[in-house]
Amino acid sequence: MSYPLSVTPRTLMGPGPSSVHPRVLQAMALPCIGHLDPDFIGIMDRIQVMLREVMMTDNELTIPVSGTGSAGMEAALCNLIEPADRCVVCINGVFGNRMADVCGRYGGEVVEVTAPWGEPVDPADVQDALRGSKTKLVGIVHAETSTGVLQPLDEISRLTHEAGALLVVDCVTSLGGHPVKVDEWGIDACYSGTQKCLSIPPGLAPVSFSPAGVAAMDSRTTKVANWYLDMTMVRSYWGSDRTYHHTAPVNALYGFHEGLSLILEEGLEARWARHKANHELLVAGLAEMGLAMLPAPEYRLWSLNAVCIPDGVNDVAVRKRLLNEYNIEIGGGLGELKGKIWRIGLMGHSSTPNNVITLLGALKAILQ
Amino acid sequence: MSYPLSVTPRTLMGPGPSSVHPRVLQAMALPCIGHLDPDFIGIMDRIQVMLREVMMTDNELTIPVSGTGSAGMEAALCNLIEPADRCVVCINGVFGNRMADVCGRYGGEVVEVTAPWGEPVDPADVQDALRGSKTKLVGIVHAETSTGVLQPLDEISRLTHEAGALLVVDCVTSLGGHPVKVDEWGIDACYSGTQKCLSIPPGLAPVSFSPAGVAAMDSRTTKVANWYLDMTMVRSYWGSDRTYHHTAPVNALYGFHEGLSLILEEGLEARWARHKANHELLVAGLAEMGLAMLPAPEYRLWSLNAVCIPDGVNDVAVRKRLLNEYNIEIGGGLGELKGKIWRIGLMGHSSTPNNVITLLGALKAILQ
Repeated sequence: MSYPLSVTPRTLMGPGPSSVHPRVLQAMALPCIGHLDPDFIGIMDRIQVMLREVMMTDNELTIPVSGTGSAGMEAALCNLIEPADRCVVCINGVFGNRMADVCGRYGGEVVEVTAPWGEPVDPADVQDALRGSKTKLVGIVHAETSTGVLQPLDEISRLTHEAGALLVVDCVTSLGGHPVKVDEWGIDACYSGTQKCLSIPPGLAPVSFSPAGVAAMDSRTTKVANWYLDMTMVRSYWGSDRTYHHTAPVNALYGFHEGLSLILEEGLEARWARHKANHELLVAGLAEMGLAMLPAPEYRLWSLNAVCIPDGVNDVAVRKRLLNEYNIEIGGGLGELKGKIWRIGLMGHSSTPNNVITLLGALKAILQ
Repeated sequence: MSYPLSVTPRTLMGPGPSSVHPRVLQAMALPCIGHLDPDFIGIMDRIQVMLREVMMTDNELTIPVSGTGSAGMEAALCNLIEPADRCVVCINGVFGNRMADVCGRYGGEVVEVTAPWGEPVDPADVQDALRGSKTKLVGIVHAETSTGVLQPLDEISRLTHEAGALLVVDCVTSLGGHPVKVDEWGIDACYSGTQKCLSIPPGLAPVSFSPAGVAAMDSRTTKVANWYLDMTMVRSYWGSDRTYHHTAPVNALYGFHEGLSLILEEGLEARWARHKANHELLVAGLAEMGLAMLPAPEYRLWSLNAVCIPDGVNDVAVRKRLLNEYNIEIGGGLGELKGKIWRIGLMGHSSTPNNVITLLGALKAILQ
C-alpha cells in the first residue's frame, strides 16, 4: 500500500539540518538529467569553482562527496591512512570520538589527545602526542557539534606540519558560518556537511585535499580500503576525464549548486558577520533569562550554541513544547551531555534575528 | 562568483538516471525538517514498509542506504565479509568486476566465475567454484547494466545455499522493472539504486538483508571495516531505537517515499508488464531497422536494451545527434563493449510507448 506524504514546516534551530532557502528546494525539483549530460558536466565544473571559493582554497581536489558529513569524514581519513599509520586524534566531544573510531577501522594506530567536553584541545597536548614515532596525520574537530566549542587551529597546524604530519579538520558545523581558511591555515584534508551553515539538505559532504594530501594518496602502497569513497577514482570522475565511478546524485547537486550561489551572493564576510551577530543576540537574551552557555566566551561557536539546562528543568518536555506549540526544533545533548545542555543552531538560513527573538520568547513562555 | 542554474529537460533513455515523475520532484522540494522530527520518523517507518513490499521480502533490515547504488553494493559486501572469507564472484560485465574489487578491499579471498560479456553466468561454473574450501558468499549481478543481460538466479541460489554460503545479488537495474523476489529466491543480501526502474533521482541505495545475512553480521569477530556503511549501527538508526548514526538525507528520502508510493499505486505486476511490453515494442522496431540485440532473447533485460551498433556507424556522432536534435539520452558501451553497443534504458517512468516510438523515429532519421 502507498502512503500520502506530508510534513509540518518547522523552524530548524537544532544541530542540523538548518532551514533551506526556497531557491535551493526549487533547484532540487528541476528535471533530472543524465550525469554525463553536457549541462550536468557544466554544473559539476561550476560547483568545484564555487566550493573552492567557499572553502578559501586553490586545492584542485575540492568536491562534494556523494554521502552525508560522516561519509566526508570517512573519505578524508580512509584515503590517507594505510595500515599501522600513526594517527593523533583530538577528542573533546562525539565527533572526535567518531574520528578515532574511523581511523581504527582503516588500521590506523590511534593516539588520543583528550580535553573535557565543552573545552578546546590544548596545543601542548598535541605537541606531546607528536613526540616519538612518526605521525601520519593529526585529526581535529574545528567546530564540535556536540559541545558548541570552536577549536583554534593555527598553533596545532604549525605543530602538525613541524612533525611532518598531515592536518585533517572536521569543519562540518563551521563551513559557511565561521571562517574556514583551508589554504591559509594549512589544512591538508577537510570535510563538511551540507545541512549546517551551508543550509542545503543533508546528503552531500564537501571535502578538500591539499597537494600534500593528494601526494599522500598517490604514494599509497595499498588500495584505499573503501571503494565508494576512493578519491583516486572519484577525482577522475570529477576531473576532466569524467571516468565513470558512481552516478552522481544529480538533483542533490542542483541544490548544492544553488546553495553555493546563495552563499557567494551574500559574501563570506557578510555571512560570518551575520552568524556572529545573531549568536550574540541569542547569548544576550539567554543571559537575561539567567541561562548560561557551556563553553567559555572565546571558544563559542556562533553556529551551534550549547546552553546549560537549569537544574529542575525537564529537557525533553521543554523541547517537545517548543516543537509542538511553536514548531521550533532545538537539539538535546549527546553522549555525556545528554540532559545537561540544549543545542541551539543558528546556521545558514536559520541564523536570523527573527528566529532568535521568537525562540527567546517561546523559551521564556515555557520556562516561566 | 555565483552562477545561474539551468538544465535542458531530456528524455532519459540511457542506463540511468531515468526520467523522474513530477510528484517525486515536488516531494523533494518540501521543506526540510529535522531527521528526528516525529513527522520524519513516520516517513522513515513508512519507507521501510513500502520498500519491503517492492522488494517482496519480510526482511526487517530493508532500508535505503544514504549513498548511490555503488554504496549499496559496498554495504551488502562489507558487512558480510571478514578478512580471508572466500567470496565466489560471478563476472560477466562491469558490475561483476566491481563486486570482485570491493570484496578484495575487505580482505575477501576472491574466486572469479566468468562468462562472456552479453551472456549469463552458467550455474555449473558456480557449482565448480563452490567445491573445495568453505565459501562465505556468492556474489552475482541479476541485471548487468553494462551488457543488458538478465541472470536467472534459481539454480545458483540453490547451489549457494547447499554449499552453506550466502547469496548476494545486485538488482540495481532490475528492481521495479523486473520481478525481484528477495524471499522466494533466497537472497541473503540485495542492493539496488534509485535512478533506474524506481525512477527516483540517484543518491540512495535500497538494501535488504535476510535473517541469515543479519546473523552473519552479528557473529562477526571484527568491526565492519567501513564506518558509514556499518549496518550494525545503521540498523539501530532505522530501527525503533533511532540511535544517532548519520543525518539521513531528508529531502532525498521525501522523493524516495513518493517514488515508492507511485510504484505501489501502479502495482508490481502491472509495472513489470509495462516494462516487458515496451521492451518488446523497442526490439521489434529495432529489428525492422535491421538492428540486433546483444543478448539472446531469453536473457534480455526489459529495462536496459543492449543494441549492437552496425558496422560503419559512428557511435558518438549518433548519440550526440539524439541528444542535441531530439533531447534524447541513450548510453554508450562500457569497458570492452565501448563503441560496440548502445544501451537504451526503458526504466520506470521512462518506459512508455511514446518514448519508444519517438526514439525509433529519431534513430531512423539519423541512421538513414
